[in-house]
Amino acid sequence: MMKPFLEAIQEKVLILDGAMGTMLQERGLRPGQSPEELNLTMPEVVASVHRDYVEAGADIIITNTFGGSRFKLAHYGLEGRLAEINARAVQIARKEAGGRAYVGGSIGPTGQFVEPLGEIPFDEMKAAFREQAAALIDAGADLLSLETFLDIKECRAALIAIREVSGTIPVIAMLTFDDNGRSVLGTPPESAAITLTAAGADIIGSNCGLGVDGIYDILCRMRTVTHLPLISQANAGLPRLIDGATVFPGTPQEMAAYHERMIGMGVRVIGGCCGTTPAHISVMKAALGTVQQPWQPRSESTGVTFLSSRSGWTAAGGGNKTAIIGERINPTGKKIYSQELQDGKVAYIRREAMEQVAAGATLLDVNVGTPGIDEPAAMERAVFCAAAAAGVPLVLDSSSPAALERGLKAADGKVLINSVSGEAKSLRRVLPLAKKYGAAVIGLALDQKGIPDTAEGRLAIARRIRNAARRHGIPDADIIIDCLTLTVSAEQKRAAETLRAIRLVKQKLGLSTVLGVSNISFGLPQRPLISSAFFAMAMEAGLDAAIINPRDGAMMAAWRSAMVLLNRDHQAAVYIEAYRGEQAAATVQAVAASDAPLSIRERL
Amino acid sequence: MMKPFLEAIQEKVLILDGAMGTMLQERGLRPGQSPEELNLTMPEVVASVHRDYVEAGADIIITNTFGGSRFKLAHYGLEGRLAEINARAVQIARKEAGGRAYVGGSIGPTGQFVEPLGEIPFDEMKAAFREQAAALIDAGADLLSLETFLDIKECRAALIAIREVSGTIPVIAMLTFDDNGRSVLGTPPESAAITLTAAGADIIGSNCGLGVDGIYDILCRMRTVTHLPLISQANAGLPRLIDGATVFPGTPQEMAAYHERMIGMGVRVIGGCCGTTPAHISVMKAALGTVQQPWQPRSESTGVTFLSSRSGWTAAGGGNKTAIIGERINPTGKKIYSQELQDGKVAYIRREAMEQVAAGATLLDVNVGTPGIDEPAAMERAVFCAAAAAGVPLVLDSSSPAALERGLKAADGKVLINSVSGEAKSLRRVLPLAKKYGAAVIGLALDQKGIPDTAEGRLAIARRIRNAARRHGIPDADIIIDCLTLTVSAEQKRAAETLRAIRLVKQKLGLSTVLGVSNISFGLPQRPLISSAFFAMAMEAGLDAAIINPRDGAMMAAWRSAMVLLNRDHQAAVYIEAYRGEQAAATVQAVAASDAPLSIRERL
Ligand SMILES: [Zn+2]
Ligand SMILES: [Zn+2]
Ligand SMILES: [Zn+2]
Repeated sequence: MMKPFLEAIQEKVLILDGAMGTMLQERGLRPGQSPEELNLTMPEVVASVHRDYVEAGADIIITNTFGGSRFKLAHYGLEGRLAEINARAVQIARKEAGGRAYVGGSIGPTGQFVEPLGEIPFDEMKAAFREQAAALIDAGADLLSLETFLDIKECRAALIAIREVSGTIPVIAMLTFDDNGRSVLGTPPESAAITLTAAGADIIGSNCGLGVDGIYDILCRMRTVTHLPLISQANAGLPRLIDGATVFPGTPQEMAAYHERMIGMGVRVIGGCCGTTPAHISVMKAALGTVQQPWQPRSESTGVTFLSSRSGWTAAGGGNKTAIIGERINPTGKKIYSQELQDGKVAYIRREAMEQVAAGATLLDVNVGTPGIDEPAAMERAVFCAAAAAGVPLVLDSSSPAALERGLKAADGKVLINSVSGEAKSLRRVLPLAKKYGAAVIGLALDQKGIPDTAEGRLAIARRIRNAARRHGIPDADIIIDCLTLTVSAEQKRAAETLRAIRLVKQKLGLSTVLGVSNISFGLPQRPLISSAFFAMAMEAGLDAAIINPRDGAMMAAWRSAMVLLNRDHQAAVYIEAYRGEQAAATVQAVAASDAPLSIRERL
Repeated sequence: MMKPFLEAIQEKVLILDGAMGTMLQERGLRPGQSPEELNLTMPEVVASVHRDYVEAGADIIITNTFGGSRFKLAHYGLEGRLAEINARAVQIARKEAGGRAYVGGSIGPTGQFVEPLGEIPFDEMKAAFREQAAALIDAGADLLSLETFLDIKECRAALIAIREVSGTIPVIAMLTFDDNGRSVLGTPPESAAITLTAAGADIIGSNCGLGVDGIYDILCRMRTVTHLPLISQANAGLPRLIDGATVFPGTPQEMAAYHERMIGMGVRVIGGCCGTTPAHISVMKAALGTVQQPWQPRSESTGVTFLSSRSGWTAAGGGNKTAIIGERINPTGKKIYSQELQDGKVAYIRREAMEQVAAGATLLDVNVGTPGIDEPAAMERAVFCAAAAAGVPLVLDSSSPAALERGLKAADGKVLINSVSGEAKSLRRVLPLAKKYGAAVIGLALDQKGIPDTAEGRLAIARRIRNAARRHGIPDADIIIDCLTLTVSAEQKRAAETLRAIRLVKQKLGLSTVLGVSNISFGLPQRPLISSAFFAMAMEAGLDAAIINPRDGAMMAAWRSAMVLLNRDHQAAVYIEAYRGEQAAATVQAVAASDAPLSIRERL
């Protein structure tokens, strides 16, 4: 009996096999033929490739099922034999593995795109991956490997599908990146890593497209946003024939040094992609023997909430700049937007998405709650539109679980759900959605009894939300507590209580915090004065994200100033960029500030 | 042996005798004659008045020396016999007291005014009181009683004089107030109480001018700002002849109720002023027997720093509004003011004093430090001018002990010294001045080694300053720690450290805190943005006083907003008053804030 795969990679770094496709071409695969069909027609050829890799020392061999999805097999009229093809592939590999190697079920891209980029609805794409994953798992694969994905949305759908089939099967998920450090569809490694981690991958990384140095850079960037073990599957350097012998680039010492770098940052599976042969694997295996290191577990509880879109990402908490959640895509009190929602139009959303991001929003709240509309459909339209118009991650703001789920399907990355409360019914409805779709969630510090008067009362609800989230398998870092801004003119004593709640929640629970800030000043004249002062105080108290109007100059001035003061805008670079040259800005009534400051020493 | 006077009043409320002057007139004092001369010429008459009061039950009898100062005696050519007159008065009273009553040496106003109101220099006025106090103390008075003062500055000078003669003689200090609740020279009871408490009185209160209800109101107002035991010496209601018997207004029950009210607020000496006779005293004594209460000690450590001027007062700390110290009267970088200081002119000071107070300053910093001038003389001129132009208490800002002392003499009330540091030399020079002249003092959290990097380092210096102050007899409430604002563009990590220092100093030492705020933004564009955000954060951290330019609209907006948010501007009254009707104010770039706030419930 081999030990479970995820335990094995904690003890030692495993070697993954090399290329399958080029090996099959050498051994009889004809142009235009389905490589996966060989599982049925030429099983011995497939087996021989596996055998060579196992003999070369591979710890993991990958099934010949890269194109084993319904969409791919349909090109060859083989979709009716999907289960058979995938099951046979596992059986062939299992026999060659012979108790010496793990069998990884390969799943590649479908060649189709999910809506709105393509025409495949999310649910249909997910069903395709479910079908292939179920076949591989049922046949006894030790793990699944999502390889060479170009579209993060498709890879995310595949992960969500696999997790519907099995909560426990180990899953590797890999995107392919270009020389420019993004996938061909514009996703940077951080964004990919955030999305894949949230959607339930166990190991993430990159395969194909880049050589060793390129992959190393990609993984370094992934490492900044994920606690997961990593996988490196670089294209091999080309072997050269020197004095009649096949020689691979790099000395064994260079190979060992490369492994050391990779392992040092938490890579636990190393393999090769295009161009890698059993001979490569053999050399890698030998080199790796000299540098084995136990896995240094990385805590999830970094206190940082990562969110992602297709092309961007935002980190809130843990000393990052306070995230700005643009609040303008919300029909409350906005007639134009309300009417557009009724009419199924998106011009307001597109404009506000672009303008809020231009003004400094790092996240966009999307709320479509207006009477008499199909809210789930409106949410899907809004998410498609906002994602296309702006590169920042989204915050799905709805009291309807159906609308939230539609938005979660429509999203490209890891979104933030706004919100769950401490009420049992809310927790029961919302937390499973967050877990299933890999989202973070805002927890409102209130329950059926309302908003507690004291910070301690709000802390108690926050703890209850955190505990419920843990039971659903949602990490602490994906809970952001809304400590609740009450209107100061109505509840004057409770403004300070909200600030105290921020401190308590961070101190006692280590959770990130968020506030809808401007509610504080409702009913008072010159509202931005009160709101911006409260915002500055809240940031000093540790506020990690703020739901505001980023086109409110006073609010953004408070934000930029606070980021300087709290040492999160290093060298005041962002601040100076924003205000340099503003000589007679209307932003403040700048009373002549010509006086030099008093030196402390002079005052002694 | 009677127990020491200050111990006695802790155990029971003492009865003070009644009027002396009217009694002497009845018994032979001629119009135009010096009442004090009777101590030499008709000692038996003086003795008979004392005897009647002692027999009526008075616990304290007051010597016939109300006009026994050099200035008063000079009217009668008796200034050469000052020592003799005062000494004899004590001897006469002592004999009649006979171990049953304390002898209080009376000291009244001189009939002259201290500069700049009158022509008597502070030192000359002080010398006059020294002379009389020394005579009374040398003759064996148990305590001194400053009575019927109209000018707080004169009464303050008398207290400072007495404390030069004796640090331990118990001193009662009383001002006389009008029906309008102020002294004839415009001093409210709070201001008087703050000044007298700081200048070294043991018991304060009011005598003459008002009946029982009026005095009660005065003492209530004094009680809000002092921890000292109080004295009530009201004019007696006129006795009426009913059925041949002398009857005093009010039943014994009413008299007892009156005593209960007085004692309930900490009055420990009750007597009568004009119109009070031994018969009154006898009735009061009887009524008092039914309501005796032990003294409830009041702590000095209220955490509130009280400061006063002739006509106003300011409380900083302990949940009061953050005090605004106007910073503009400072020649650093101001050519016009520098030149005026060279020329001995005060137009700039007068204008800035008025304008800063109009803009919201509750204290005024006065700094005259410019090269090549007589700084003590300039400080005196500046204090005279600023006190006349503005009703708020002053902050004397100088590194020269001589200039500070000149300013302390020139002041009408309890000022704030800016500043002492943790350096031994600074503590040695500045703290005795604060103690002697009854001033509070700003303690800079730095020493010869500079400004500590950490909040803990600044706390340690604050503690050292506090301990040194205690050794000088300065209460904790009169130390305000400057946690030191460093320029954020130069020392970015230390901005948060300053805020942490504020919290630490308040939490660990219970001291009030102050900052010169605007130094934070030196070198950055749009300085008011950074300064006002930092100011809001500092107020939330507990800042009790801020040295700022009150004509900086952004700073005052942060202040007004913070006072609302921290529940110190109840019902936002000050805020609304300031901004009501400002529709298109230039104060902020008010982006359309027309959206109604999201109800929390709606978001569920
Ligand atoms: Zn490849
Ligand atoms: Zn490949
Ligand atoms: Zn009187």
